[in-house]
Amino acid sequence: VEIAILVFDGLTALDAVGPAEVLWRIPGAELRFTGKERGPVQTETGPLRVFADHELDEVTAPDVLLVPGGFGTRRLLADEAVLDWVRSVHERTRWTTSVCTGSLVLAAAGILDGLRATGHWLQMERLGRLGATPTPERVVREGKVITAAGVSSGIDMALHLAAIEAGEDVAQAIQLAIEYDPQPPFDAGSPDRAPAHVVDQVRAAAAAREPPL
Amino acid sequence: VEIAILVFDGLTALDAVGPAEVLWRIPGAELRFTGKERGPVQTETGPLRVFADHELDEVTAPDVLLVPGGFGTRRLLADEAVLDWVRSVHERTRWTTSVCTGSLVLAAAGILDGLRATGHWLQMERLGRLGATPTPERVVREGKVITAAGVSSGIDMALHLAAIEAGEDVAQAIQLAIEYDPQPPFDAGSPDRAPAHVVDQVRAAAAAREPPL
Repeated sequence: VEIAILVFDGLTALDAVGPAEVLWRIPGAELRFTGKERGPVQTETGPLRVFADHELDEVTAPDVLLVPGGFGTRRLLADEAVLDWVRSVHERTRWTTSVCTGSLVLAAAGILDGLRATGHWLQMERLGRLGATPTPERVVREGKVITAAGVSSGIDMALHLAAIEAGEDVAQAIQLAIEYDPQPPFDAGSPDRAPAHVVDQVRAAAAAREPPL
Repeated sequence: VEIAILVFDGLTALDAVGPAEVLWRIPGAELRFTGKERGPVQTETGPLRVFADHELDEVTAPDVLLVPGGFGTRRLLADEAVLDWVRSVHERTRWTTSVCTGSLVLAAAGILDGLRATGHWLQMERLGRLGATPTPERVVREGKVITAAGVSSGIDMALHLAAIEAGEDVAQAIQLAIEYDPQPPFDAGSPDRAPAHVVDQVRAAAAAREPPL
């Protein structure tokens, strides 16, 4: 199973690393961290840099495409080289997937036209403007397209994908290996249940960081 | 808040990136990815490489130390340069923390002597042999030492830490920003609840990968 993970400046590290931590454990999986150029990529996560090991044109027919999110996706929405690659790769994938605002990139590439899709809760309107049918669920599967909600949801999505690709025993073994038995200290992970003043604060902080398009 | 995250060949990427994704969002936080040498670090997560931005002797008094796990920790248990740094830094930290088998490194440095501590469920015996009192909980706090269980537990631990350092509103805002509303497709994240044959399989696979010491 060849799995291409798109990496780009301003990606949210956990969007890529959560799924990667699950997916590399699928027997036979080969992950390809793929960027516009080979070399270091500046994530938006603190000063963390990760490596792109492959350039776009070296990865032409992965079985799985994963597009993570982050504020850096906004630049990709007008980057025809990236959008062309996403479209071209999507023609042959078994699964085309995104985490968080990665779904905006799939949408800008035209892949989500008329499809139900999810993404970060703050970006559901934009997702709709880009042609998808915003669907506020944790993981949304439409044919071979699987989108996941904000950041940490990529772990859940990847476990679904592991089960589809390799069976439930393998997916459960991976869940156990990474001891994914979540016990968040608060019940604030969804805008439906977080305190209203916390929702307002996150909304304002995100708006202040939103780059101009 | 200066937060040193130790990076080393063979670390489990999610052990470091899960907490990093939470901690960089604390107002005023500065993350220092710190390794024996500056430069690329090969994680055990697929071919993913991350960067060490700082060498050990450049980071002498962080407020928080975080030691992630991974099979690469086994080499650190006999690496006096790393253990000396951990001991020295620990003298001045507000919080000394670990994720997964990172607790083995804290134990080898003598920091967990007689303290309750957790780590990956497969390594609790070894943790005991290194002087800690193995405690199979998700997050264990003993004074200023906080240990977390396997891999994904670092996210929960970091939210606890964010609440202690910056208050519950900030921690909840971070949880909401990363949409940490986990919905694993299976209930297999703990050896108590995963099917027995899955537990056996993970145990055997881990034993086969265990490097000689």
